[in-house]
Amino acid sequence: MTAHVLLIDCPDEKGLVYRITKTLYESDFNVLKNDEYVDNSSNHFFMRTEFAGEGDSNVILKKLQEALPDTANIRLNPQKKKDIVLLVTKEHHCLGDLLIRYAYDELNANILAVISNHNVLQPLVAKFGIPFHYISHLHKTREEHEEMVLKALKIYEPEYLVLAKYMRILNASFVSHYSNRIINIHHSFLPAFIGANPYKQAFNRGVKIIGATAHFVNDDLDEGPIIEQSVIEVNHRQSWKEMAKAGRDVEKIVLSRALKLVFQDRVFIHGNKTIIF
Amino acid sequence: MTAHVLLIDCPDEKGLVYRITKTLYESDFNVLKNDEYVDNSSNHFFMRTEFAGEGDSNVILKKLQEALPDTANIRLNPQKKKDIVLLVTKEHHCLGDLLIRYAYDELNANILAVISNHNVLQPLVAKFGIPFHYISHLHKTREEHEEMVLKALKIYEPEYLVLAKYMRILNASFVSHYSNRIINIHHSFLPAFIGANPYKQAFNRGVKIIGATAHFVNDDLDEGPIIEQSVIEVNHRQSWKEMAKAGRDVEKIVLSRALKLVFQDRVFIHGNKTIIF
Amino acid sequence: MTAHVLLIDCPDEKGLVYRITKTLYESDFNVLKNDEYVDNSSNHFFMRTEFAGEGDSNVILKKLQEALPDTANIRLNPQKKKDIVLLVTKEHHCLGDLLIRYAYDELNANILAVISNHNVLQPLVAKFGIPFHYISHLHKTREEHEEMVLKALKIYEPEYLVLAKYMRILNASFVSHYSNRIINIHHSFLPAFIGANPYKQAFNRGVKIIGATAHFVNDDLDEGPIIEQSVIEVNHRQSWKEMAKAGRDVEKIVLSRALKLVFQDRVFIHGNKTIIF
Amino acid sequence: MTAHVLLIDCPDEKGLVYRITKTLYESDFNVLKNDEYVDNSSNHFFMRTEFAGEGDSNVILKKLQEALPDTANIRLNPQKKKDIVLLVTKEHHCLGDLLIRYAYDELNANILAVISNHNVLQPLVAKFGIPFHYISHLHKTREEHEEMVLKALKIYEPEYLVLAKYMRILNASFVSHYSNRIINIHHSFLPAFIGANPYKQAFNRGVKIIGATAHFVNDDLDEGPIIEQSVIEVNHRQSWKEMAKAGRDVEKIVLSRALKLVFQDRVFIHGNKTIIF
Repeated sequence: MTAHVLLIDCPDEKGLVYRITKTLYESDFNVLKNDEYVDNSSNHFFMRTEFAGEGDSNVILKKLQEALPDTANIRLNPQKKKDIVLLVTKEHHCLGDLLIRYAYDELNANILAVISNHNVLQPLVAKFGIPFHYISHLHKTREEHEEMVLKALKIYEPEYLVLAKYMRILNASFVSHYSNRIINIHHSFLPAFIGANPYKQAFNRGVKIIGATAHFVNDDLDEGPIIEQSVIEVNHRQSWKEMAKAGRDVEKIVLSRALKLVFQDRVFIHGNKTIIF
Repeated sequence: MTAHVLLIDCPDEKGLVYRITKTLYESDFNVLKNDEYVDNSSNHFFMRTEFAGEGDSNVILKKLQEALPDTANIRLNPQKKKDIVLLVTKEHHCLGDLLIRYAYDELNANILAVISNHNVLQPLVAKFGIPFHYISHLHKTREEHEEMVLKALKIYEPEYLVLAKYMRILNASFVSHYSNRIINIHHSFLPAFIGANPYKQAFNRGVKIIGATAHFVNDDLDEGPIIEQSVIEVNHRQSWKEMAKAGRDVEKIVLSRALKLVFQDRVFIHGNKTIIF
Repeated sequence: MTAHVLLIDCPDEKGLVYRITKTLYESDFNVLKNDEYVDNSSNHFFMRTEFAGEGDSNVILKKLQEALPDTANIRLNPQKKKDIVLLVTKEHHCLGDLLIRYAYDELNANILAVISNHNVLQPLVAKFGIPFHYISHLHKTREEHEEMVLKALKIYEPEYLVLAKYMRILNASFVSHYSNRIINIHHSFLPAFIGANPYKQAFNRGVKIIGATAHFVNDDLDEGPIIEQSVIEVNHRQSWKEMAKAGRDVEKIVLSRALKLVFQDRVFIHGNKTIIF
Repeated sequence: MTAHVLLIDCPDEKGLVYRITKTLYESDFNVLKNDEYVDNSSNHFFMRTEFAGEGDSNVILKKLQEALPDTANIRLNPQKKKDIVLLVTKEHHCLGDLLIRYAYDELNANILAVISNHNVLQPLVAKFGIPFHYISHLHKTREEHEEMVLKALKIYEPEYLVLAKYMRILNASFVSHYSNRIINIHHSFLPAFIGANPYKQAFNRGVKIIGATAHFVNDDLDEGPIIEQSVIEVNHRQSWKEMAKAGRDVEKIVLSRALKLVFQDRVFIHGNKTIIF
């Protein structure tokens, strides 16, 4: 018996669940887990199903396409292990966490390479035998630099880019190459403290809780669909640098949780929101 | 269009979701929300469905009974507002919270009466115009006291008993009258600190977090299926009385969250666990 | 032996702790608890001391004044129970929570009256025997309305105003009458979602966590010093109204925690921040 | 100006803070931070002070000894970077997290070596250039095995042992060599689920929250003074293996937070509790 993952989204109409489960049942598959959701404001249907059986997955995919509206977006068994490239700058905590997880096969992804605009993290990446591309941004326009990064990415053709504390803003033209496939960790509880140095902003505002946000990247800075958020308490005794230190643990846990959700095919993007099963 | 809530659980077999959604579809109902779960160790199937349509609910119930195995436990539109009685002792925080919610119709339940083995909470209950039964346990055996409580309960025939800090242990014979229908709030993070004065136990153990647990009551003290838990941080500066004070807020929130889940028919009991949709 | 609370803040200089503890020691007082903090950016010293002894508090206050710089702000045994007035609009959850706590003397404050621009909460307040002033804002300018509120407040001369979901913006002239003595509960995790309907804003942004913030009110909307914050997780299944419902529990707990801190004289205001011991 | 850390604990008596701050003041030191606490049940005084100045630390230590009772336990500038050895078994998550932190000098400690009763983690440790001792427990009595571990430890003379998921119980005789200097991470919210496989216990009990506890090790299994605890939510959908996976993140964060507190000399042990400043 083989296990399958099925993701479907389409405009809602009566009988969708029935038609999907009928198709699976008639092909002798057994539903193991099933999650569905209808977004009322847009009248859009989302479903994620895990099922098992001995049938042919190409046959069942074809049958589902016949049973469902043409508008349905059907993904059966999306590539299990995602090919990814990490972009980093100077901070090691998210990168280190992901490298350890990768070394023990916990990521559901292959880290094909790490690209950085600085070379300080090269020794850490080298420990894990992963290619490291140092592409400095110095003396280059943003466009020139991004062109070089894109070129390096072409070697690997990753499914996802993970910005593991990549401290540069990306142009819309860069983002368009990996639409809905770039995941960023922002070091604040978005939408609070958008932009530069959120810990300093948080310190100056005197907040009692700080946080981190993992989100897909779109054209607007820090405005993409949020995948995961978490917070920790802070107090007046902490300088903004101490807040930043304390925040690192939140950042790395939030990023790895978000990646786990995305790489297990649990996340739908719908407008500027995520549906997560 | 009327909205309905359907709860089904039975031994798992192939095609259950298909048969259920087929039955609803053929009667022209539209599924609004759907949650299901199969417990692998016991091979038991659980499903909660919200659906809407113009059909007759008695007809659809009959059709579902025909479509599903005889062993299926099917509940369609369980009584919307639950009739409940609260049992309390001397502490006001859970009681007060529930009375305020009840006064503004947030409980999905009718508080028919409050029963207490002390009379200190009578004035609070009186503010809300709810019958208060003071049944002292003094000079009575446990059996005699429980007999008197049962007699008072007979007036109201509640669907659920809520132990909102009722500081007495219940005999199995009492519990058997309300099997799976008694909800207790225990002032610790179960299974830590079972039994008397958990805050003192927590203080003596030097824990850094304390909590509260809402659970169904069965024969074994503090061993029933857990519905909801939450925690707060404590530190060495707090005496056990200060921990108890801080814990009250957790207790009242955990109890009201648990009641919300149960009274919205989101909770299945399965052995000593809960399945919550 | 009488217990005393001493609050001191002044520009930092060498030997402040020494001079304070020397003064207490020489008057035969014993320090029970001691918290201090120096804000490095402003070089300002804060100290809160609980001490006990048989000496005269007026004598010790005078000695402290002599021992410390003229710039020192010294408060010894600030009025134990604070006189407060609550301002509310239509929502009952914070008000109800405070009334229950007040009925059982948990607030360290006397609720002298409740003032509202609507009359819907009058019955709840009446249950607790507290004066209720219905001062409608209809057909009045903001200034006229605030003038009437100020007039009502004059009857009570409260030390603090608590905005327990008072859904009106206050003019700077109103605020100036109770400078640093107005506490508001804002239904978001400030500085996220400043302004109107934060739950709708949160829903539209697709956040995974929502929160509440208790803060002192100053001239800028939602910009005053933050006292306490807390959060809860939300997900895509919740409408903004369901988020608002879930948020109520956070709001009431955050507000009551903030009031407890302020009314136990644990909070210093320093610029737009709070120092909390 | 040199910064110093001073830790004092002794039976409480009047004037301790005064005498300490007087001694510092007269030697021209400035107090930067000060925390103190008196445990009422045992009448014991604890104080941690950070101060700065140009004076000689040996001189000030001598003066403090003269000013304080003979019973006072005074530690001035405890060794800044702690020498530690890690004991591990097969799980990599805590070890990996500590190695990354160590590589970037975030631990306030030197990892002198890693000792394991299995050899699976050798490659990970090798990446970081740290000695790895594989001391199998097979075909040895517990006493024989511990004797070999003690022998290996003698090479390094560590100040602290960190049990970073070391899945063996230690004899009292072993523990006595490192009294109050062994820190363990237990994969449950102690005192819940003491002993073997706490995630399986948690799963079987149907809890809604799981946690982790970092504590000092004493003779009784999982009974030593607790340093740090944290929790995450779980639900019925998670198998005990999935709970264990989710718990790993909590374990590693709790362990590293506890180590940070201990290695910054913020933790007093008092009976079976910790006082943490």
